[in-house]
Amino acid sequence: MNSLASPTLEALGEDGVLARILTRLPAPDPARVPVGPGDDAAVSRIEGRLVTTADMLVEGEDFLPAWCDPVRLGVKAAAQNLADVHAMGAAPHGLVISLGAPGTTPVDVLTGIMDGFAAEARRAGASVLGGDLSGGPCLIVSVTALGTLTGPAVLRSGARPGDAVVLAGTLGRAAAGLDLLLAGCAPEGAPADLAALIEVQRAPRPDYAAAAAIAGSAHALIDASDGLAGDLGRVARASGVAAALDRDALTALAAPLVPAARALGDPDPAARALHWVLTGGEDHGFIATVDPGRIPVGWTRIGTCRAGDSGVSLDGEPVADTAFRHFTGDR
Amino acid sequence: MNSLASPTLEALGEDGVLARILTRLPAPDPARVPVGPGDDAAVSRIEGRLVTTADMLVEGEDFLPAWCDPVRLGVKAAAQNLADVHAMGAAPHGLVISLGAPGTTPVDVLTGIMDGFAAEARRAGASVLGGDLSGGPCLIVSVTALGTLTGPAVLRSGARPGDAVVLAGTLGRAAAGLDLLLAGCAPEGAPADLAALIEVQRAPRPDYAAAAAIAGSAHALIDASDGLAGDLGRVARASGVAAALDRDALTALAAPLVPAARALGDPDPAARALHWVLTGGEDHGFIATVDPGRIPVGWTRIGTCRAGDSGVSLDGEPVADTAFRHFTGDR
Repeated sequence: MNSLASPTLEALGEDGVLARILTRLPAPDPARVPVGPGDDAAVSRIEGRLVTTADMLVEGEDFLPAWCDPVRLGVKAAAQNLADVHAMGAAPHGLVISLGAPGTTPVDVLTGIMDGFAAEARRAGASVLGGDLSGGPCLIVSVTALGTLTGPAVLRSGARPGDAVVLAGTLGRAAAGLDLLLAGCAPEGAPADLAALIEVQRAPRPDYAAAAAIAGSAHALIDASDGLAGDLGRVARASGVAAALDRDALTALAAPLVPAARALGDPDPAARALHWVLTGGEDHGFIATVDPGRIPVGWTRIGTCRAGDSGVSLDGEPVADTAFRHFTGDR
Repeated sequence: MNSLASPTLEALGEDGVLARILTRLPAPDPARVPVGPGDDAAVSRIEGRLVTTADMLVEGEDFLPAWCDPVRLGVKAAAQNLADVHAMGAAPHGLVISLGAPGTTPVDVLTGIMDGFAAEARRAGASVLGGDLSGGPCLIVSVTALGTLTGPAVLRSGARPGDAVVLAGTLGRAAAGLDLLLAGCAPEGAPADLAALIEVQRAPRPDYAAAAAIAGSAHALIDASDGLAGDLGRVARASGVAAALDRDALTALAAPLVPAARALGDPDPAARALHWVLTGGEDHGFIATVDPGRIPVGWTRIGTCRAGDSGVSLDGEPVADTAFRHFTGDR
């Protein structure tokens, strides 16, 4: 994440850095945001109830700069928060971003992050409402996303026996991309099918329109940031239902991942690909449960909810949740 | 910031840490927050327009753990954000907090931060709406504060010639407290008058009620997080007025700081105390401009706005803004 031609943060000073960052933001729509960034706080108009969520990305912990250029990092920081807003059945309203970085950081790193962040906000229809800038020992991107809800919230706890389990977006691609990066696969030189997986890890692009299309009919909705087993498991536990996955549907989702497993020399590429689909997070695919007769365009059925023991199963066997958790040292 | 009896974050794992943190939060009022922390996002009801601001505290940059126990750090993180909400003339609504910390951190550090954070939120009447937890090389406390505005926003740009410049709260105490800490003055063993200054640095307690009392009549309002010269200078520039400070008022504000300047061996304690009042931030006192006949209870007049050159002056001389800025290496 180097940009040798660009002055550093310490060369520009806080006010100089802020001035450069603010120029990367589109002017907010004054009807929606009567006071934009620059005063003590921004003022915006919302209709309905307010939806609030936050996610922080820390260098070395949630990303490695060598794998993630600034623009993609900004996309990812916006996308993972906007996905949570949509996972409540809400419409995106605004984003707030706090950046921390060492003084030796080239300012292009921060303006690149803002470019990606603003572009993804625009794709989702969200305004950038401001933020903060601090020093720090590493790059920190801390985001709060705000949404609005005029109908009922779609919670994790609403799944019912008989519901279809449906997916919009992909599963396992970001996890396969991460394993390729960990194995030393360079994003730029990789074959197109592998590069596509790495791209999902670096800059996920959730299908916001699909989430919006199901908000009125879904009984439960979640974004699979921690993987299918983990996040569908949360829905099943919160709803008191069992979720039985469909092997054919998962095999179809795993098929594009088999070349990556092969490239990694895995002796059982199909099994590795299925493992990514079941446990890999960070694609930010959306998982919903819905009446089987009301599956919207853009959604794929991947299983069925049944009365039962609140677990996730495949061919009658429980599926373990082995998603990444902070502090435990596992990935 | 050590707590040897407490298990570390890596011993508990992310889910165990989250479970401990969530128990420190008061259950939100279901009429105001129908969906609290725990789903993909929180849902809350607001009346009026939405006010949004953010501030991030990074260990080693914005605080040193040796000076700031976890509870006070939580108070400070909430207070500096809630002050910005009030500085728009808004009522506080909710807070979102993202925490980053190394896995070796005792969990009591994070639960202590949450205790202070929740207590200050309660004092201001704000709900804690959720947040995020990540690893990191140091302690990171990143906060977004939300408020609601039913009347007009009180901007920095509304000051008028003839307005009284008024203050609620204190100026320079946090800066004096910081200089005492930098000189090695231990918070616990210090004489009461010095300890009181250190306390303002460690855990500022802005006068939210005073800010609310002036919201309907103030022409301009700001929280003096970067000091009187810097923040009143922003008001003067945004409003196109000159702000003339009153020496007697500043001398009265400086008087409680003179013992600290003496304790530091300053050859001119009165001048040092006045310097803290003019340039020290982080007390989060509120500065407003208002019709001289409409100064509310709890506010002290410290100057006058005049038509003129957009600067801050004392006895006709310009006052320089030497507030701390990130990345420049100065304090």
